[in-house]
Amino acid sequence: MIKRIIDMIKESKITELSEYLQKLNSVDIAKIIMELDDKYSVLVFRILPKDTAAEVFSYLDSEFQQHIIEAMTDSEVEEIIEKLFLDDTIDFIEELPANVVKKVLRNVSFQKRQLINQFLKYEENSAGSIMTIEFVELKENMTAKEAIDYIRKTGFNKSIIDTFFVIGKYRKLKGIVSVKDLILSPENLLISEIMNENVIFVNVGEDQENVAYLFKKYDLVSMAVVDFEGRLVGIITIDDVVDIIEQENTEDFQKMAAIEPSEVPYLKTPVVLLAKHRIIWLLVLMVSATLTGSIIKRFNDVLQSVVILTAFIPMLMDTGGNAGSQSSTLIIRGLALGDIKTNDYLKIVWKEFRVSLLVATVLSTVNFFRIYILEKTDIMVAFTVCGSLFFTVMIAKIVGGILPIIAKKLKFDPAIMASPLITTIVDSFALIIYFYLASVFLGI
Amino acid sequence: MIKRIIDMIKESKITELSEYLQKLNSVDIAKIIMELDDKYSVLVFRILPKDTAAEVFSYLDSEFQQHIIEAMTDSEVEEIIEKLFLDDTIDFIEELPANVVKKVLRNVSFQKRQLINQFLKYEENSAGSIMTIEFVELKENMTAKEAIDYIRKTGFNKSIIDTFFVIGKYRKLKGIVSVKDLILSPENLLISEIMNENVIFVNVGEDQENVAYLFKKYDLVSMAVVDFEGRLVGIITIDDVVDIIEQENTEDFQKMAAIEPSEVPYLKTPVVLLAKHRIIWLLVLMVSATLTGSIIKRFNDVLQSVVILTAFIPMLMDTGGNAGSQSSTLIIRGLALGDIKTNDYLKIVWKEFRVSLLVATVLSTVNFFRIYILEKTDIMVAFTVCGSLFFTVMIAKIVGGILPIIAKKLKFDPAIMASPLITTIVDSFALIIYFYLASVFLGI
Repeated sequence: MIKRIIDMIKESKITELSEYLQKLNSVDIAKIIMELDDKYSVLVFRILPKDTAAEVFSYLDSEFQQHIIEAMTDSEVEEIIEKLFLDDTIDFIEELPANVVKKVLRNVSFQKRQLINQFLKYEENSAGSIMTIEFVELKENMTAKEAIDYIRKTGFNKSIIDTFFVIGKYRKLKGIVSVKDLILSPENLLISEIMNENVIFVNVGEDQENVAYLFKKYDLVSMAVVDFEGRLVGIITIDDVVDIIEQENTEDFQKMAAIEPSEVPYLKTPVVLLAKHRIIWLLVLMVSATLTGSIIKRFNDVLQSVVILTAFIPMLMDTGGNAGSQSSTLIIRGLALGDIKTNDYLKIVWKEFRVSLLVATVLSTVNFFRIYILEKTDIMVAFTVCGSLFFTVMIAKIVGGILPIIAKKLKFDPAIMASPLITTIVDSFALIIYFYLASVFLGI
Repeated sequence: MIKRIIDMIKESKITELSEYLQKLNSVDIAKIIMELDDKYSVLVFRILPKDTAAEVFSYLDSEFQQHIIEAMTDSEVEEIIEKLFLDDTIDFIEELPANVVKKVLRNVSFQKRQLINQFLKYEENSAGSIMTIEFVELKENMTAKEAIDYIRKTGFNKSIIDTFFVIGKYRKLKGIVSVKDLILSPENLLISEIMNENVIFVNVGEDQENVAYLFKKYDLVSMAVVDFEGRLVGIITIDDVVDIIEQENTEDFQKMAAIEPSEVPYLKTPVVLLAKHRIIWLLVLMVSATLTGSIIKRFNDVLQSVVILTAFIPMLMDTGGNAGSQSSTLIIRGLALGDIKTNDYLKIVWKEFRVSLLVATVLSTVNFFRIYILEKTDIMVAFTVCGSLFFTVMIAKIVGGILPIIAKKLKFDPAIMASPLITTIVDSFALIIYFYLASVFLGI
């Protein structure tokens, strides 16, 4: 596809290229532009009809947006920016270096510039920062027909998805009317009779994570955002919420793997930054592993007298770590999805207790069979190893189940409590139990 | 809130209760019903207006749906089911025991029963199984006004969100018309002139994961589903896709923590099932840890002659495991989001090589400082430990980066390749390097 486009440019078949591009989706055109050489990409962008160009622009990565802005004349920049939805403009301005921002702000209308500035002031990850202000607002005392006429007149640059928002005096949010209800209602019915007053909305300052939670809970496609006086100031649409959901999931994956969270895709993150995101936790965990080291040092005489005991340490530690992170992962995920609440902690402990009893029994039995019957290890050593395995798995699962809840209660992020930290705690328990049982069974 | 409702029931204030419930959202009513005792929940459900009842029903967990169906008369069941959207009916039928399914199927119209049966035949997790067939379809040769009149006549039981779908001869999918374009177009414009022919659609057999990917890529709110002849047979809506996205994420979290994936929330999963989901991988990993055990046994004389070496084994293993799962998590997530493709493997190896060089250098330097300067360990032992740490981190990161790609190439799920499996591999490398360096530096 790329080759064909380059050929058309080289042969100056501009009309043909233009027709070809019109058949493509904006997302795909954006992808093509990002794959082309710089000299071709600006040319292809210029060929696009202005409306398409604005849409394609919103799908470009910020480095390409910057490149295109730099290559454009002031009036071209103006045309693109004026056609962009405001939330897309904000998104891309936030990523630009200051000199390019200036070029953009110089070329937008005063009104739009004010809006941009206003938006940039909302806190990151707040409802205000992700909302769009280009929506259609209806009044209670309009009839269905008046509302449709009003939408015809004012809707062109607005985002219309599934819902219209109804305001009363002082722009106070009064209700919502679904597109469906508006179309299906008799022409002379009043909006106040059609609208649903039971509206789910958020305040501009609300955290985006909670916004996503409400969208999921109430199966929303768009949602109203109000200011502190209850006035309608914007709407949030599902496409942005889907991005937020994926972003929050990515952050949880990263935290659970002991990485500082970052939104930038892996291949686009510089090496130094990748290293920085990883090194802090690795250092913390490495130093905390000193604990296991000192436990071993302290019981070195035990290991000296029964040499074979050392060989089972990795297995004990790994199994304990895995058992613990299984539990913590399920609890962290349940908390994130809202399936588990912090006051479920008694249920969790009781459940993990029973699960771990089953799991620990099976694991130690299999292990006993393996090391006593198959490997013909001394029976007392086998008892020591399997007993330790049993208690380690029990402790690992209960600690893994309860630690995320404690973190959440203390207002820490439960995801941070995941595998790596639990591994360190469980390792220490495992070694202490191991050496204690060794002294009991082997009389050291 | 619950208490107030129970009070109203006890005092037989049914009108008051009915008014109170009407002010609530269906999702919240469903929540209340699930918190009430059985005797009250059916009563509250009966008070609801039939339309609300159907909606509330769709938000109940399957055990409560079953309970309500069992408590209802045949004609009540009929009313509820006829008002439910078909996709919600399918969802709940799939969860019911056979005798309750019979009660449901007995009470739906023949036409609806045929449809249900047809849907139950689509493969689980396919586009066909998640689509709804209650949508409005327009014809190319309608005018905008005719289309709106047609929607008014036929739209009542249909799902109308942001898009109408246009079909031609033999129900072939021809294009889509957004609600916005339909409202804004002059009344006499033909649908064929308004519609966008560049439609993103999927086949009924398409995997739901790919459906979710397309929704995210193209910022869709609804999407057409066609059969193998290209005929429009259903639509998929974003609310179901959001559930799929969360479900796929949950599965990845579970796989990465070495748990068999399950869709049932933690608190609702029986203990035996929870244990079963976890035990298989724990057994596999426990037995594979025999490898590390046998490495230690083989080099036992090294540990015997320099006793202190044992104390550093947990730190080495844990740090290697953490370093490896950091890399694998980023790659697995990148693959899941489509940011990383399998043919990026050279870029990944090169990137991980440089990242690990930085990380390994910092970690071994800090560790050298700690064990040589602070703990005054023998310098040769310090060299052995820090050298091993350096190479272990290097190998862990490169293995962690490349293993998910190999898994994907071999058509395995990359998430399975995460932390636990990588830990076992990295542990073995760590020990071999450790004993090798010990023999070099300490001359054992």
